[in-house]
Amino acid sequence: MAGYGDPHTVRSFDEELTHLNEMIARMGGLAETQLADALQSILDGDEAKAKRVVEDDHQIDVVHTDVEEFAIRMLALRQPMADDLRAIIQSLKAAATLERIGDNAASCAKRVHVLHESPAVPPLKSAVRMGWLVLDMLKQSVDAYLRRDVERAIAVRNRDSEVDDFYSSLFRELLTYMMEDTRNITPCTHLLFIAKNLERIGDQATNLAEMTYYLVTGKTLKTDRPKNDTSSFTIVEPKHFDG
Amino acid sequence: MAGYGDPHTVRSFDEELTHLNEMIARMGGLAETQLADALQSILDGDEAKAKRVVEDDHQIDVVHTDVEEFAIRMLALRQPMADDLRAIIQSLKAAATLERIGDNAASCAKRVHVLHESPAVPPLKSAVRMGWLVLDMLKQSVDAYLRRDVERAIAVRNRDSEVDDFYSSLFRELLTYMMEDTRNITPCTHLLFIAKNLERIGDQATNLAEMTYYLVTGKTLKTDRPKNDTSSFTIVEPKHFDG
Repeated sequence: MAGYGDPHTVRSFDEELTHLNEMIARMGGLAETQLADALQSILDGDEAKAKRVVEDDHQIDVVHTDVEEFAIRMLALRQPMADDLRAIIQSLKAAATLERIGDNAASCAKRVHVLHESPAVPPLKSAVRMGWLVLDMLKQSVDAYLRRDVERAIAVRNRDSEVDDFYSSLFRELLTYMMEDTRNITPCTHLLFIAKNLERIGDQATNLAEMTYYLVTGKTLKTDRPKNDTSSFTIVEPKHFDG
Repeated sequence: MAGYGDPHTVRSFDEELTHLNEMIARMGGLAETQLADALQSILDGDEAKAKRVVEDDHQIDVVHTDVEEFAIRMLALRQPMADDLRAIIQSLKAAATLERIGDNAASCAKRVHVLHESPAVPPLKSAVRMGWLVLDMLKQSVDAYLRRDVERAIAVRNRDSEVDDFYSSLFRELLTYMMEDTRNITPCTHLLFIAKNLERIGDQATNLAEMTYYLVTGKTLKTDRPKNDTSSFTIVEPKHFDG
């Protein structure tokens, strides 16, 4: 059996780690594309594009399963210690996070049909703008993960409060439109869920940034995470529209 | 170094697996309690209880971190193969799932304040009834996982479509109440999100059931999962209330 320091074993294990990272990179790229296409389909009312996003979600799931199988094989055959073990476990967590980001992007796209059938409402554009903010955060966090870039990971995490602020204000805006005209209720409800999916993608991108921090430093970045989402406490009174 | 078949090593590894399972059992128990308390606080408008649910969410997170650290130590020190490796990896996935179930229960509880401040709406009771269905599913799926009970796991998975049916009908009911009276918009919006959180707990309980199936049989149960959630396509026309 090849021992510690054997150049063949070392190279081959590094190659495997690189392959694992490449699969995560592929998942990240797919998740970004899915989110970008979901946002574009919402903006354009493009049902065909939205349908493709929903159908393509399984591509991320397939790579996720590959990551899991490959990582488990590495654990079994390589029996890695310390840093290598941590890298493999974090890959499993990163892959699971990207898979859920893909799910959230697909959930947004699923609502394009209803939005397209409903009256147009101005907050649709606000929701898409929130989505672009989240997409940018996602790109940064995937990048930070793949390059093991701690500075960038911290920057991503600090931007999550921007997304939360946007979400809280959009939540209030949507409720106001619903109260103004009952015909807005259906499209605004679906936009509320889209906004929630986007807010969750922001959280998941932040989780990925926290994983990067842990991977590089061995320390957690969990405490004092800025949280500005106040939507759970939002009351909008309808009285302004009754009189 | 103790070899394969060494009675001390074998007993000790089994003890460690038992400890891992006990921690998962604790997380499952906490998640069930959190969901039950969240539902009761919604039903009673009990803000003090809801606040406790939100505060106690970190208890699940603490055990989750313990599970991760313990599992990673086991992987590093025991270097398990095949079935043992699978059991440890599935523990990590089960713990992550239970942690997210706890998050969803806390998200429900966070909205009790707004619901209590808003006009009472009849769908609140429907939402709680949906929650009881989900709680029952969660109990069954935690039980199936801990006992490695494949039959029960399959039964849980088949019940997910019941939850989806309930959710789709509640979604429509909530939109109808919103259109009837603009004063219902705020409470019904928060109930929409509660219903969504409950639907996700149902999905997560189903994921746990699928993990149990995989753990025991080594096969996936992913295909042909019954999905009856049609809410993403729901349009409710306000015209019935305009005339």
